[in-house]
Amino acid sequence: MTVKQLGENALKVKTFLAQVSSEDKNKALEAIAQALISNKEKIISANKIDLENGKNAGLNAGLLDRLMLDSDRIDGIADGVRQVAVLNDPCNKVLSEYKKDNGLLIKKITVPIGVIGIIYEARPNVTADAAALCLKSANAVILRGGKEAINSNTAIAEIMRNAVETAGFPKDVIQLVQDTSRASANEMMTLNGYLDCLIPRGGKNLIKSVVENSTVPVIETGSGNCHIYVDDGADIEMAANIIFNAKTQRISVCNACESLVIHSGIIDKALPVIKASLDEKNVEIRGDERAQKACPGIIPASDEDFYTEYLDYIISVKTVDSLEEAIEHINTHSTGHSEAIITNNEKNAEVFLNCIDSSSVYVNASTRFTDGGEFGLGAEIGISTQKLHARGPMGLEQLTSAKYLIYGNGQIR
Amino acid sequence: MTVKQLGENALKVKTFLAQVSSEDKNKALEAIAQALISNKEKIISANKIDLENGKNAGLNAGLLDRLMLDSDRIDGIADGVRQVAVLNDPCNKVLSEYKKDNGLLIKKITVPIGVIGIIYEARPNVTADAAALCLKSANAVILRGGKEAINSNTAIAEIMRNAVETAGFPKDVIQLVQDTSRASANEMMTLNGYLDCLIPRGGKNLIKSVVENSTVPVIETGSGNCHIYVDDGADIEMAANIIFNAKTQRISVCNACESLVIHSGIIDKALPVIKASLDEKNVEIRGDERAQKACPGIIPASDEDFYTEYLDYIISVKTVDSLEEAIEHINTHSTGHSEAIITNNEKNAEVFLNCIDSSSVYVNASTRFTDGGEFGLGAEIGISTQKLHARGPMGLEQLTSAKYLIYGNGQIR
Repeated sequence: MTVKQLGENALKVKTFLAQVSSEDKNKALEAIAQALISNKEKIISANKIDLENGKNAGLNAGLLDRLMLDSDRIDGIADGVRQVAVLNDPCNKVLSEYKKDNGLLIKKITVPIGVIGIIYEARPNVTADAAALCLKSANAVILRGGKEAINSNTAIAEIMRNAVETAGFPKDVIQLVQDTSRASANEMMTLNGYLDCLIPRGGKNLIKSVVENSTVPVIETGSGNCHIYVDDGADIEMAANIIFNAKTQRISVCNACESLVIHSGIIDKALPVIKASLDEKNVEIRGDERAQKACPGIIPASDEDFYTEYLDYIISVKTVDSLEEAIEHINTHSTGHSEAIITNNEKNAEVFLNCIDSSSVYVNASTRFTDGGEFGLGAEIGISTQKLHARGPMGLEQLTSAKYLIYGNGQIR
Repeated sequence: MTVKQLGENALKVKTFLAQVSSEDKNKALEAIAQALISNKEKIISANKIDLENGKNAGLNAGLLDRLMLDSDRIDGIADGVRQVAVLNDPCNKVLSEYKKDNGLLIKKITVPIGVIGIIYEARPNVTADAAALCLKSANAVILRGGKEAINSNTAIAEIMRNAVETAGFPKDVIQLVQDTSRASANEMMTLNGYLDCLIPRGGKNLIKSVVENSTVPVIETGSGNCHIYVDDGADIEMAANIIFNAKTQRISVCNACESLVIHSGIIDKALPVIKASLDEKNVEIRGDERAQKACPGIIPASDEDFYTEYLDYIISVKTVDSLEEAIEHINTHSTGHSEAIITNNEKNAEVFLNCIDSSSVYVNASTRFTDGGEFGLGAEIGISTQKLHARGPMGLEQLTSAKYLIYGNGQIR
């Protein structure tokens, strides 16, 4: 089936989804969770083919690990689907309601976006996670995963489609693109009139390609060149502790700290303490001249370093003479994801919060908290680094649009 | 100055705008209003050059009228700027606030989008309207109007830039692109990293070109192939009255009715009454076979007609045998702007409201009410026909984004 045909199928289920009840959506999610568990063997044997193909294609251990599904992981996926079921229904919430002098009653309510496309890479859990969130928000979803996971994804998608059918839903509320060539991705990016929104989930290159080539509206997610600024007079122990956590607790994630910005007034005292702590995990520190001077063992940073999301045991250090210089450096180099200030000065904290142009701005805490679960959204479909529609961790609310309903009795203008 | 240089200038004023008070924004708006009035002659004489050039270039009377500025119209523009000043500040509104068990206080607030680009055509009033809305929402704006109005736009922009400077603002919160070639529009569409959002205002071709060529996030506005469905058992007088209003009160606007959908059970009685009313304004009616049979004087509609936004004294008529068929026809052919049902059946009204996938859905009222002013938003920068970020009339609220502020005292994950 072509991507366009999937789009046509999705349009046909919109009227069903526009009228579906919360109860029925939750029944369908429970049916999916049960079906994933009772069909574990089918999923695991499909996954084995992907793993075998992956080994033959020379995928590295990290990628193979992301690809791998076992009984525990499938339980985890099913559990995630059930967690989505217990969240509040994001649809049909009244955003505003008022009566005009002419007697018109105007209500603004939340509604499903419509048809959502997800382009992702080798993690087969995304197939179920994204489908569950889209179903709960009454959106039809067209999933297009990477070729590495196609057998796993096909098995999971078929199990979910059959499960929703037993719950009285049309199967096509969930569809998977079978063609994993670049052509099918390009087709999705230009499927205006069918897709209302496209969300890329994956590495920098995938996201860049979707942003640049899509005519369908895109929600940009993901990349995080996150900064921590150590202000003059900051609590040095706290700074070292937070930086160690934000850099090393999990290096491969978008909310990990990639760059340290430090005030010249505190650098001589603070940087050696911070370095001693990062040394425990052998973090390579690349700094500007003043950082190198303040502390032995820091190697020179290039201009490029300050733009780099390492996702590795590496961190850059920039020295500044003022809060304003820190803000300018960060706004120039960050990806607008998460940034933190470590300070004892409330006024400086306030200026930092106001002026840093990122989705999540912290005072005296680790950037690692930028996450749907940590923020209490329940589940997340990604972390938006753009300004329109959604910013920061995106939960169910961000999978809705709005609609005005206007009740009259013959009003004309 | 190149468009990119304007982008660089805009980035430099973001820190100022991130901290500006409501009071100062309102002072700047009042300064703009006063300056527009006290510089009327300068604007009118620049406008005369545009009008002269327009006549020589053979612009039609309608376009020349849109282009023309006189003392009254400038008063109107200044008045519009003052009306924006009295609206509530859309920034720094707390959207949610909660404390987590780990002690983190998480606040989500509204913030300016950042830098907004507006691409528009020959109406010089857009220059001031859009600048006022962007200033009130603390966004920097880069305006790129059509070549027909370049002298008027340059005069208005310079007056506004000088006015905000007297109010203590950097001039570059408002910038106008001087180069009105296609190249400058293309440059804006790909100004990622500088522009956070692009809003096209104008005709279908302009909007299509921006949607197709932009890598910057776009808010699609404007085109309206609006339907009115006359249900079986509807009040025929009310239907005729509403259709007459929606079709003829102002034919050139996006919320005008372009297509009538009518139930076969009522067509023989209703269509002659509707036609008699539309005949008063010599509206041409293009219908399907059953419509032609039901009423003499209706000419055949092609398939193309049902997709056409006429913006003229023409309307199409489609006959259906059920509410479901009406909904399917409308969702297939509409642009998602505004649709109405005329009915006495509450259940049918509810199904129509739920299933029609448009920004504004009416029961027993004219589609002409879809408008920022009529909906009580105060002023509008356009009517969004997309699902993401904004839907329907866009006011100040839609010119903001959100940001999470997280207050800790050393929390790590």
